[in-house]
Amino acid sequence: MTDYRQMWTDLDMDLETHDQLCAVLPAAFGDTYLSQENRPENMAFYDFVVSEIHGVRPAELIELQKEGGKVFGTFCVFVPDEVVVACGGAVTGLCGGSQFWVPEGEKVLPSDMCPLVKASLGAHFGKTCPYFSVADMYVGETTCDGKKKAYEILGADKRTYVMDMPQMKRPKDIEKWTGEIADFAHEVESVTGRALTPEALGAAIRLINDKRRALARVFEARKAEGCIPISGKDALLMMQIAFFDDPARCAEMANKLADELEQRIVDGVSVFPAGTKRILVTGTPLAIPNWKLHHIIETSGAAVVCEEMCTGTRYFENLVDESADTLEGQFQALSERYMKNNCACFTPNPGRIADVVRMAREYHVDGVIDANLKFCTLYDVEKPSLAAALEAEGIPCLALETDYTDNDAEQLRTRVGAFVEMLGE
Amino acid sequence: MTDYRQMWTDLDMDLETHDQLCAVLPAAFGDTYLSQENRPENMAFYDFVVSEIHGVRPAELIELQKEGGKVFGTFCVFVPDEVVVACGGAVTGLCGGSQFWVPEGEKVLPSDMCPLVKASLGAHFGKTCPYFSVADMYVGETTCDGKKKAYEILGADKRTYVMDMPQMKRPKDIEKWTGEIADFAHEVESVTGRALTPEALGAAIRLINDKRRALARVFEARKAEGCIPISGKDALLMMQIAFFDDPARCAEMANKLADELEQRIVDGVSVFPAGTKRILVTGTPLAIPNWKLHHIIETSGAAVVCEEMCTGTRYFENLVDESADTLEGQFQALSERYMKNNCACFTPNPGRIADVVRMAREYHVDGVIDANLKFCTLYDVEKPSLAAALEAEGIPCLALETDYTDNDAEQLRTRVGAFVEMLGE
Ligand code: SF4
Ligand code: SF4
Ligand code: SF4
Ligand code: SF4
Repeated sequence: MTDYRQMWTDLDMDLETHDQLCAVLPAAFGDTYLSQENRPENMAFYDFVVSEIHGVRPAELIELQKEGGKVFGTFCVFVPDEVVVACGGAVTGLCGGSQFWVPEGEKVLPSDMCPLVKASLGAHFGKTCPYFSVADMYVGETTCDGKKKAYEILGADKRTYVMDMPQMKRPKDIEKWTGEIADFAHEVESVTGRALTPEALGAAIRLINDKRRALARVFEARKAEGCIPISGKDALLMMQIAFFDDPARCAEMANKLADELEQRIVDGVSVFPAGTKRILVTGTPLAIPNWKLHHIIETSGAAVVCEEMCTGTRYFENLVDESADTLEGQFQALSERYMKNNCACFTPNPGRIADVVRMAREYHVDGVIDANLKFCTLYDVEKPSLAAALEAEGIPCLALETDYTDNDAEQLRTRVGAFVEMLGE
Repeated sequence: MTDYRQMWTDLDMDLETHDQLCAVLPAAFGDTYLSQENRPENMAFYDFVVSEIHGVRPAELIELQKEGGKVFGTFCVFVPDEVVVACGGAVTGLCGGSQFWVPEGEKVLPSDMCPLVKASLGAHFGKTCPYFSVADMYVGETTCDGKKKAYEILGADKRTYVMDMPQMKRPKDIEKWTGEIADFAHEVESVTGRALTPEALGAAIRLINDKRRALARVFEARKAEGCIPISGKDALLMMQIAFFDDPARCAEMANKLADELEQRIVDGVSVFPAGTKRILVTGTPLAIPNWKLHHIIETSGAAVVCEEMCTGTRYFENLVDESADTLEGQFQALSERYMKNNCACFTPNPGRIADVVRMAREYHVDGVIDANLKFCTLYDVEKPSLAAALEAEGIPCLALETDYTDNDAEQLRTRVGAFVEMLGE
């Protein structure tokens, strides 16, 4: 393993505290991931990425910076990567997924906020994540109260640009988002010192669409009936890594994985015994390394076959129309695609419920687990209407709330176990 | 006292539960308000309104409805009353301020949401508030996560129109809000069956401005040095009643009260002994009958002389420009005025901090209490930056968090008492 200590020092990171994180991650990953049997061979790439998670990719981003490229850190799938890529920049997703960062975040934020926001600010202020340290700037969005206000605190410490999300989905809101994308493009141009051209943006749109198509192929394989070619944990890991990997490599690796999964389906190779209950998980995002719920489900006699969340289908569903050849037309195409995301930050948000019901059919699920992070009001309030819709469709649903601690693991295990058992009756 | 039981029955209210509320309110009001000494004579009107709070004004609104007028229930000071008034309608503020309604709200909402939202939905679904019952429709706004999503639940039970607040304050956001006001005007026209004219809207703008000027006169009197002509509790009550009273009467009564207060200043009549510490309260709104914090402060040796909140200065500061004579121009003037409100729903929101510092000087305050309702992320996150700004100005600040229960009353009393004592040192 390369020694990245000099790089971390150059990034002004807190090495001592970071060492503590590095000391626990491999064991956590080993227990959760490497204990699985019969994993697809192509997961080796993702295992490698995790083993060098704070090394290889940050080093690449530093290389990019040396060549004059800029790194943009984001916290939401609404921020259009295409614009950054078209200006020679790189995007890295920064949502924090570990309790490790939460106490540091609670120094600058109220404790009764969702752990994702607290972990993100904790990773920044604690200087224990190279992705935060390497980012030239952050890009925020006004999606939820917690993030919207947290950007003010982040912004006092590092350049932060905020995009104003419309909170509804009327035609004029899509137009508004087009305008926000155009404004963001100006910001990216000024930060990167590169002028955006329709050619470059067109190429970036195709590149990110290719990445979406590749990720979608993996999920397509998860729809197979009578065969589960990949665990939910492994599919989730691929998704989590997609947020910070190079988009072309992301597409290449996902396509290779999809090839293998498609062959597995032909060969009838399943990572779970026949009859294993199929679960769709919906709710708030599962930022890396948040594998808690998937691990509990998949060690309780069930398998996760789909994630209707931003670290899942919402990241790749819906392509950007590739036919526009003016910046204006491209901004509009981007807006139309992004505004199809059925995040609970919109009101109303019937599309998410329709998506869950549709996907429950497409992925042949036996039950839905609707899990949200504690203090996420947006998703929490949608729970009863989602439950009612699923009940009307005869699809069993379990609503859970959790955070990043391990305190509730046993309670979750009991509830998930009872749910899976009920599905077998 | 008139018997309003038949009216409440006609409004389809839950009389039995409502009786419980009616049984406790007079005692709570008596203990908190009528125990005060040397109150302005003109508070008699407001005392009367409280004594008949679920009777007189709802009866007036029903009369209005019989004559074809419509009643619009609102939950935020961003909704422009002027448009409703210009179409012959009435606006009634509906934010719930009592723990009485919270358990009912928790049946349809997560418990870790701010009590104001829970109480509001509790009052609706429990059918224990005639203002909710009498409203023909509700008007919401996308200000915070809690309200934004709660309107979906309210909207399933009663016609609800939602305005999309921009979350920032750039010129294009003010333009966007102008568009939202124009859309709302169409909705009001269609609900009331009346066409909006520049004449009617101009008259409504002047009427609501008059109300603002009258309320501002009362607050102006609170700026007097060496004399506190009205208690914070009484001023708060006037503000709370302004949210549902007839605007012309509201202005008339506030002007009468202001006359009296101005005379008191000339005569040196103060409701607190000389040397009483002057407190500015800032934070989340104090919806009727939430008098808890004011009562604690004013029975701890201090006086509240200003509320920088929506049930305070934000309700009346900034007038709408009266010179426009086209609907377009008027919508723009309305937008410009409303967008001056420095609610924490905006990012960034430096204006609120500047307002608090400015008002601390204008009202000659000795200390600021920054109090927010539990689970209000928006105001909670602003606390450290507000505290830092006040510290830089040498203005003492106490940050508090509370809800509608009485559980923390003793703890609050201890903290407020220590703060007031510290101010005297
Ligand atoms: S859940 Fe909503 S706010 Fe969060 S990343 Fe997804 S789209 Fe963005
Ligand atoms: S999980 Fe919910 S509260 Fe947390 S960042 Fe996402 S939308 Fe915001
Ligand atoms: S605090 Fe903000 S959201 Fe609440 S009433 Fe005031 S302006 Fe509206
Ligand atoms: S107090 Fe805060 S959380 Fe509650 S309704 Fe107002 S803005 Fe929303």
